[in-house]
Amino acid sequence: MLSYQCHDCAQTHGLHEGVWRCPCGGAFDLAGAPSFASFEGVDSSQWSLWRYRHALPSVGEGDHGSQVTLGEGCTPVVRTGEGVLVKLDFAMPTLSFKDRGSALLVSAAKGLGVKHLVADSSGNAGTSIAAYAASAGIHAEVFVPSSTSPGKVAQLDAYGAHVCVVEGTRAETAQAAIARVTQSGAFYASHVYSPFFHHGVKTFAFECFEQLDGTLPNAILLPAGNGTLLIGASIGFNELAAAGLVRQVPRLYAIQADRCAPLASARGVAVGESAKTEAEGIAIAEPPRLAQMLEVVDASGGDVLTVSEGEIQRARSDLLRLGLYVEPTAAVAYAAIERLGKDRPESILVPLTGAGLKSPAKAPL
Amino acid sequence: MLSYQCHDCAQTHGLHEGVWRCPCGGAFDLAGAPSFASFEGVDSSQWSLWRYRHALPSVGEGDHGSQVTLGEGCTPVVRTGEGVLVKLDFAMPTLSFKDRGSALLVSAAKGLGVKHLVADSSGNAGTSIAAYAASAGIHAEVFVPSSTSPGKVAQLDAYGAHVCVVEGTRAETAQAAIARVTQSGAFYASHVYSPFFHHGVKTFAFECFEQLDGTLPNAILLPAGNGTLLIGASIGFNELAAAGLVRQVPRLYAIQADRCAPLASARGVAVGESAKTEAEGIAIAEPPRLAQMLEVVDASGGDVLTVSEGEIQRARSDLLRLGLYVEPTAAVAYAAIERLGKDRPESILVPLTGAGLKSPAKAPL
Repeated sequence: MLSYQCHDCAQTHGLHEGVWRCPCGGAFDLAGAPSFASFEGVDSSQWSLWRYRHALPSVGEGDHGSQVTLGEGCTPVVRTGEGVLVKLDFAMPTLSFKDRGSALLVSAAKGLGVKHLVADSSGNAGTSIAAYAASAGIHAEVFVPSSTSPGKVAQLDAYGAHVCVVEGTRAETAQAAIARVTQSGAFYASHVYSPFFHHGVKTFAFECFEQLDGTLPNAILLPAGNGTLLIGASIGFNELAAAGLVRQVPRLYAIQADRCAPLASARGVAVGESAKTEAEGIAIAEPPRLAQMLEVVDASGGDVLTVSEGEIQRARSDLLRLGLYVEPTAAVAYAAIERLGKDRPESILVPLTGAGLKSPAKAPL
Repeated sequence: MLSYQCHDCAQTHGLHEGVWRCPCGGAFDLAGAPSFASFEGVDSSQWSLWRYRHALPSVGEGDHGSQVTLGEGCTPVVRTGEGVLVKLDFAMPTLSFKDRGSALLVSAAKGLGVKHLVADSSGNAGTSIAAYAASAGIHAEVFVPSSTSPGKVAQLDAYGAHVCVVEGTRAETAQAAIARVTQSGAFYASHVYSPFFHHGVKTFAFECFEQLDGTLPNAILLPAGNGTLLIGASIGFNELAAAGLVRQVPRLYAIQADRCAPLASARGVAVGESAKTEAEGIAIAEPPRLAQMLEVVDASGGDVLTVSEGEIQRARSDLLRLGLYVEPTAAVAYAAIERLGKDRPESILVPLTGAGLKSPAKAPL
C-alpha cells in the first residue's frame, strides 16, 4: 500500500488526503513503493522506462494502475572521450529528462482521479508535465518565471496548458502556484515535492546499469537545481545496491553554476556573486530539498562543484564539436569534468538533460 | 564487396571512384550490402540502430568499418487511437529521423577517408549530416534554401558547419551544392543520392518489426519529399520479407502537401495550386528519385495521397492534444489518416519525423 512519508519527521499520509507536503514542512518520500529486485522482472520488449514497470509505483484500477506514456526513456549512451560517457537524456518526447518523472507523476494523478493540476517550473518540468497532462486529458495550469526561454513557453502553450508568467523569482513562481492550489483545490503536480516524480527519474539508474552491462561508472556528474535527477538517480542506484546487483553506488556529484550555488553556500564554500546564469534550468536559489540533496551526495561519496559561465559555454562548444547540441543547463555537468582534477575517477557518466533548441543562447565555437 | 549500382541502367561503380550518380543520370542503389537474415544477429545490448549492425553496410578497416554514432535509433512507438500507432522518430540526437541515414552515410564517408563533405537540404538532413560530420571530424559545407526555418539554420550553425544560404528553390540549392562538389572535389554527402543513407533509414523497418513483436501494421503513412524514409523503409521491409520473417510488406502510403505534390501530379491527379507549404521538409518539387518512389508505393500496394494546409494544421493540433509536439512536416502523414476513408486498413503506423521546436509555425488548438 503506497503512502506519502515525510522525509523529515517520518509521519505518513494517504495519497487521497490531498496533501502535497507534511504539516511539519517536510517533503515527502514514497513509502511502500516497489523496488528493483532482479533483472528477471524487466520487460525488454518495452522500449521505454515501462520496461521497469515491476519496480514502479502505480495508482488506480487494474494490475498496473493508470499509465500515461509518450514513450519516454531508453535513451542512448555514447562515449565522448577517454573514460567519459554521456547519456542523451534529451532524446525524449518533450526533449528533456523530465519526461521520466512526468510520466509517473501524471500516471499517479490520473489514477487518483485528478481533472485539474497546477505545476510550476523554470521551464522543462512544466513543459513535460503539460504534455503528459494533455495526453491524460487533465487540465494543466503551469506557472513559470518571466525569465523562462521563449522556446519553452512556446512549447508549453502548444501543449494547451494555461501558462501563468510570474514577474518574479523562481521561488515567487512556486509561491504563486501554491496559492493557486490552495485556492482552487487542484492537484499540485510538483516535480520538486511529489515523490512520484523521483520514482520516474530513478529509471535513469536502471538504464545505466542495463546499458553498461552491469558495470556502473565510478562517478556521475549531475546538474542540480531542485535535485530531481540527483535524488531520483540516487533512489535507483540504491535499489540496485539493496538488491545486491551492484557493489557500490557511483559517486554522485551535484553541479551548479557559480552564479546560483546554494549547495556550495550551504557547505560554506564562497562562490561568485549571485547573478543571472545561462543555466536557467538549475537557477534555483532556495531548493526545498536542499538538505536531502546534500545527504544524497555525501552518502555516495560524491561532492558539490560549481562552474563559471565561461566554463558552461566552453563545455557547450566542446559538445557541439562532437555533434551534440544541448541547452546551457545541460552543459553544466559536462563542464565540471575539468574541475575533478587529479582526483578524477576512472569512468564518468554525464547526462545531457535538455535539447539545444530549448534555449536561444548561442554557443560560440 | 560493396559497390554502387545504378537504379536505372544497373551499371556498377566502385565506392572509391568518387562518383555520386551514374553517368546515365540514374541514382545509385548499393550492391553487395548485407541484409537482415535473422533475429539471432540482433545485438540487443545496443540501444541504437547499431543493434542491427549485422545487416548494415560498412566501409573501412576493422570488422565493422568506421562507425560514427551519436546513439540514433530505438525510438518509441505509442498508440494514439483505435488501430493507430505513432513512432516518435524525432527522439533522436538531432531531433529528426534523418539521424538514421546520417549515421550510415557519415560512417561510410569516414571509412572512405573523406575530410570535407558537401550536403544540401531543406533543413533536417543537413542539420543531421552536420552533426555527424562534426562527430567524425569531417569539415561540412551545407547548402540550404533561404526558406529554411531559423531554428534549423541555428542548429546547423551551432554544429560548426559552413552554412551556404541559397536565394532560390530547393532544386537550385542542390545545383549550387553539386557545383561546389565539382569545383572542390569534396565528397557529396547527399541524403537523396547516397544509398548509404537509405541503408541507415531501413532500420526504421527493423525496429517496427522488433517492437511490435513481429506483427507489422497493415499500412504505414510516410511524409514524402525526396523519399528517403519511403525508400529506406521499403528496403528494410523487403529484407524482412526476403528472410521469410514477414509474409507481407505493409502498404506504404506516400503523403505530400497539396501545394507541392509531384507524386500525385505524376499520377495525373489534379492538385491545388503550387505554393509555399508549412511542410517545408517535403517541399520538393522535383525529387530526383520520383520514379523509384512510385515503384516502392506500387510494389507495396500502397498509394499516393495529398493533404491541405488546413488538414496539416489540424493534425498538428490533434497531436498536441495528445502531448506530441511535432513540426508541420511531421504532421502531414498523420493528417492523411482521415483521407483513407472506408478503405482504411485495420492497423496504421505513422512516423513522427521531426520535433516541434524545429519549426516556428504555431499550431492553433
